[in-house]
Amino acid sequence: MKYSSSLIPFFNPKGVAVIGASQDPTTLGYGLANNLHHSGFKGVIHFVNLKGGTLLGRPIYTTILDVPDPVDLAAVLIPAQFVSQTLKECGKRGIRAAIIGSGGFREVGPEGLVLEQEMIQVAEEEGIRLIGPNCIGLLDTHLPIDTTFLPPPGPTPGDVAFLSHSGAICAAAIDWARGQGYGISKLISLGNQADVCETDLLAPIAADGQTNVLALYLEGIKSGRRFIEEARSVVPSKPIIALKVGRYESGRKAAASHTGALAGEESAYNAAFRRAGVLRAETSEELFDQARALAWCPLPMGNKVAVLTNAGGPGVTAADALEARGLKMAEFSSATMDALGKILPAAASLQNPVDMLATATPDQFALCLQSLLEDPGIDSVMVIFPTPPMHTAGSVAKALIPVIHQAEKPVVISVMGERLIQEAVEHLRAARIPEYRFPERAAAVLAALVERVELLKHAGAVPVLKQDVQQETVRQILENQDAGSHLTAAVTQRILDAYGIPSAKMTLAKDENDAAAQAAAMGLPVVLKIASQDISHKTDVGGVLLNLADEKSVRGGFRAILDQAAGAQPNADIQGVYVQEMVPLGQEVIVGAVQDPQFGALMMFGSGGTEVEGLKDLSFGLAPLTELEMDTMLNKTWAGRKLHGFRNLVPADITAVRDVLVRIAQLASDFPQLAEIEINPLRVFPEGKGAAAVDVRIRLDSTGN
Amino acid sequence: MKYSSSLIPFFNPKGVAVIGASQDPTTLGYGLANNLHHSGFKGVIHFVNLKGGTLLGRPIYTTILDVPDPVDLAAVLIPAQFVSQTLKECGKRGIRAAIIGSGGFREVGPEGLVLEQEMIQVAEEEGIRLIGPNCIGLLDTHLPIDTTFLPPPGPTPGDVAFLSHSGAICAAAIDWARGQGYGISKLISLGNQADVCETDLLAPIAADGQTNVLALYLEGIKSGRRFIEEARSVVPSKPIIALKVGRYESGRKAAASHTGALAGEESAYNAAFRRAGVLRAETSEELFDQARALAWCPLPMGNKVAVLTNAGGPGVTAADALEARGLKMAEFSSATMDALGKILPAAASLQNPVDMLATATPDQFALCLQSLLEDPGIDSVMVIFPTPPMHTAGSVAKALIPVIHQAEKPVVISVMGERLIQEAVEHLRAARIPEYRFPERAAAVLAALVERVELLKHAGAVPVLKQDVQQETVRQILENQDAGSHLTAAVTQRILDAYGIPSAKMTLAKDENDAAAQAAAMGLPVVLKIASQDISHKTDVGGVLLNLADEKSVRGGFRAILDQAAGAQPNADIQGVYVQEMVPLGQEVIVGAVQDPQFGALMMFGSGGTEVEGLKDLSFGLAPLTELEMDTMLNKTWAGRKLHGFRNLVPADITAVRDVLVRIAQLASDFPQLAEIEINPLRVFPEGKGAAAVDVRIRLDSTGN
Repeated sequence: MKYSSSLIPFFNPKGVAVIGASQDPTTLGYGLANNLHHSGFKGVIHFVNLKGGTLLGRPIYTTILDVPDPVDLAAVLIPAQFVSQTLKECGKRGIRAAIIGSGGFREVGPEGLVLEQEMIQVAEEEGIRLIGPNCIGLLDTHLPIDTTFLPPPGPTPGDVAFLSHSGAICAAAIDWARGQGYGISKLISLGNQADVCETDLLAPIAADGQTNVLALYLEGIKSGRRFIEEARSVVPSKPIIALKVGRYESGRKAAASHTGALAGEESAYNAAFRRAGVLRAETSEELFDQARALAWCPLPMGNKVAVLTNAGGPGVTAADALEARGLKMAEFSSATMDALGKILPAAASLQNPVDMLATATPDQFALCLQSLLEDPGIDSVMVIFPTPPMHTAGSVAKALIPVIHQAEKPVVISVMGERLIQEAVEHLRAARIPEYRFPERAAAVLAALVERVELLKHAGAVPVLKQDVQQETVRQILENQDAGSHLTAAVTQRILDAYGIPSAKMTLAKDENDAAAQAAAMGLPVVLKIASQDISHKTDVGGVLLNLADEKSVRGGFRAILDQAAGAQPNADIQGVYVQEMVPLGQEVIVGAVQDPQFGALMMFGSGGTEVEGLKDLSFGLAPLTELEMDTMLNKTWAGRKLHGFRNLVPADITAVRDVLVRIAQLASDFPQLAEIEINPLRVFPEGKGAAAVDVRIRLDSTGN
Repeated sequence: MKYSSSLIPFFNPKGVAVIGASQDPTTLGYGLANNLHHSGFKGVIHFVNLKGGTLLGRPIYTTILDVPDPVDLAAVLIPAQFVSQTLKECGKRGIRAAIIGSGGFREVGPEGLVLEQEMIQVAEEEGIRLIGPNCIGLLDTHLPIDTTFLPPPGPTPGDVAFLSHSGAICAAAIDWARGQGYGISKLISLGNQADVCETDLLAPIAADGQTNVLALYLEGIKSGRRFIEEARSVVPSKPIIALKVGRYESGRKAAASHTGALAGEESAYNAAFRRAGVLRAETSEELFDQARALAWCPLPMGNKVAVLTNAGGPGVTAADALEARGLKMAEFSSATMDALGKILPAAASLQNPVDMLATATPDQFALCLQSLLEDPGIDSVMVIFPTPPMHTAGSVAKALIPVIHQAEKPVVISVMGERLIQEAVEHLRAARIPEYRFPERAAAVLAALVERVELLKHAGAVPVLKQDVQQETVRQILENQDAGSHLTAAVTQRILDAYGIPSAKMTLAKDENDAAAQAAAMGLPVVLKIASQDISHKTDVGGVLLNLADEKSVRGGFRAILDQAAGAQPNADIQGVYVQEMVPLGQEVIVGAVQDPQFGALMMFGSGGTEVEGLKDLSFGLAPLTELEMDTMLNKTWAGRKLHGFRNLVPADITAVRDVLVRIAQLASDFPQLAEIEINPLRVFPEGKGAAAVDVRIRLDSTGN
């Protein structure tokens, strides 16, 4: 994996200067110096402190300028107000990478922000890359190096890299990983991300041969699309699993359209992680549970799981949890059933979940597992055992390990209990086989492995881009529109036409005579709709009349709509009434697009009509769309599933829906100034008959470009 | 709490005979004898084995008949085929309670079932109450007594009782509880429940002064309604939390109505637990996490939570998890903010979640917690701390404990990490303050405490029963109906009328002339509907025509419907066509009832129409309904929430909906032979205008009574 050579000193420095190294053991500056000293770092270590002296058998230089070669990385832990000056000196000394552990910057308010901006400017002038400020530092257990000031002991060496926006969680993360019996390859605390951000580090960490999984604790993403691109290049070789926190703060904004109101930050993150092929952990515990399995297990070929246990109850618990996570209980081949029958006593249950009974021996565990792994209808296996009455849990673990090591399918273990099963746990951990105390957590882990397979497909999928769209036409149309406005129906129609999006024909009638004439020209019956950019939800104000079949109804309708609108919204600016062709009946869906501030154009699909916010039958995907992403969006909603037909609903023209989705996605990607696009409803006709946008709203953002 | 005196020997025996006590240390019979011997049991212990001899300093009698007084409980662990004979001897010896640990009964197949039935018959003849067979036994850490054959060590004494349908989980349960630092008061394994079942034991366990919480691991419930009644009498004083497994096997049945198809076993269990006031744990881990907090914490007054931490990231994680569980982040009073401001440095975040910064001292933790607990707008507090850099986690725990002990609000702790925080964990456990490694688990625990408060209201709520229903009329109508049939529209109408359920007027037309005459009498326009008990979904076969406004349309419609139906279902038995009054437009909901095999009449409410199974906007509640249960059912669905009005939907007559729900629930409770009742749609008119059942289907079960 290629990455910027300017980052190399962070990962493989020749010499590190600790600026702010302290002789006082109660200070963080001592902690950092001490950790680095004991880390086994093979390069040269220098200490700097204007007080001078010696520390841990090394001289303390009073300035970085005096530090001898080699030195290419500074670890800075001095008061914020002195950092810029020190960076200048680092620049003079030829140092081009610094980890700023110091706090007192942006996180403390306006004065800190000034200091941070000053520091960034100095770093740019001097060509210095920065990690931090306000961070814990960086460690690598294999190089090894430790520039953190975390209290010892540091992490066990391992193959999970941990990258965190929260410094506070780092000590706990090391301790959690240790408690779960696995090691850390690298740990990096990113702090305020004045320069280097989470995205910058994906490729360098993935390039580390000792790292098998990247576990991320994210409070946000700095540059959404770049994150996706970097992650997509990493995940085929190294899985990324992320916990993104801060949901509770998101999605609390007012918006004019359904799409705008419903397409919250969380929907965008979910869509982005899927597109990037990044697993999203739901909880901190899942992050740690699953990172380990991702590092240690082969991937399953599918979602069919066998459960093997010496206890009926936990087998049922596991089956519940597996199905709740969308996995399937495998059906065994008759050969497998025969094989199990030969191994187990008559009273055992040979169906999935296999209950070997409490009398199960370690050998029976191993033989049954072997049989299950040989069944091509089984993609993965969960083995569950409370301590068997007549054997130790450790002896069961020992019997299972060689079978699991031979297997090309994932096997996860639930060893039930806590203190009585420690021997089994230790054997399994040493053998790099993931074990959990509760079957439900093991089920979540298998689900994550299955999801990783699905995500690899997403990460490899290519967006659909139509060649027949008239981008230049739309560019010209938009040049003449007011920023922040809703486009008129006529302009909207031209844009839809330019992008090949079918819609019901519509004209604007200024008066009753106009309406009658246009209706006659269009062909009766027609629909009348209030024409006003101030009225968002036309049906709410009696602004829509359907199925007007003769001239009298059209004229009466025209007057009625104006009366209703004037009554409901006396201050609305009303341009007249639209006359629209009456399109045939069909299924109705909503197709929308918004510009997410983080990830750009985000598509929404689901059940349309007036109750979109109530039914919440919706799915989201990043534009431009891939075929796979459209599959996901359609399958996630009832609106999408029923397009295949349901009872008296005939199968609808899914091809036409997908075509509209692709084209709207392309439009929203091509023109980020289109803040919201919403077709509600898109009327979908029976198979082969197409679809038509019946009501479309497009809003330009306040910049207009 | 009163309970059957026949159960007393299980809980406070004077003398226990171990039948099948063995000298061979590799046998379960030795294990049981040894556990009982070492349990500290203060009554008399007897050993019985036909081989005779001595064991643990006691004689082994060759038959129970020889055992001297006192003896009132037998713990039986001998091969299945000898159990009945032994029970006869127990009867002769005057023993009226036996725990049958032996396996080899119903669980192994038909021969075992015969042995079990024989055993049940002997027990009935001899008046012996049985726990088991195929169970681990029973233990009580306070009495104390231990009649299990679980490998030592037994559980720590504590206040959580554990009642389990799975024997295999018991050893793990003891170990889990030990690992989580809390004790067990009683543990009872129920096995095959040949006699005593989970319901029988609720009152006796709740009567135990040492037990504060009942934790149940259930694979089913033997007698649904009795369980609810027993649980309702227990929960006001002792919380019950249950893990019910076996979801994956449920809900896989075909049914004619939406309600029948959708009202699965799981919906019934959820409704039943709510009615009973029983908390339902989602996972095994939740069962253990939450039982402890239910035992140790006061209940919160509401759902507003404050989060106090020395680390920003975990605070955000907690807020996410709390909101995901339906709790609210409290807004602090200005007095609280002032108080926090005086305790904390300027850079701290005084908003919820409170970030005290990494520098927080134990004293600051204690003072801030005190301030939060004094704020009347805060119902509970979560304190989160990774080990602070300059203090130990243990010192933080010690500072917090006295504040928490003074508090009348629940405080739960997330101590982040694993091995570095063991001192803090030990202090907190000793102080009976629940602590968790991850903020998300602590959030789930607070949610359980809030839910307990809500459940107490449900357990105390009284069903609404209408006095103006004509039960006798319906009884007579049903006497003349065929078992297993769908009732005709005319019969259905009479039943609805008898229970005061408003419906659209409807008559049956045998031919076109009939139809025209009935339509004229009823008043045009009318609706025509195919009349056939063989056609479940009328609209699917073109069997419904709306808004027929003149005689010609009615006649044409009559012919069209018969043609359509003949085409779609040539073999259907067709009675004619119904002429129905055209009721005004309104919101449409579905109201259904089924008879759950476990819990009896179960109500369904939600979004009606033809897409019920697709939208799945549904909720369930046990009949007869309480006002609170109706609140829950209405609030859980979009169909219920939008009755209050939404955009251009005017507020609908919720009172009329509640009236229909109550009456259908009463009908379904009064007549269990009504296997399925479904109103789809119930048309709901604007406030004050009532509602009308437009289409109603009632199916009699195959017994008809």
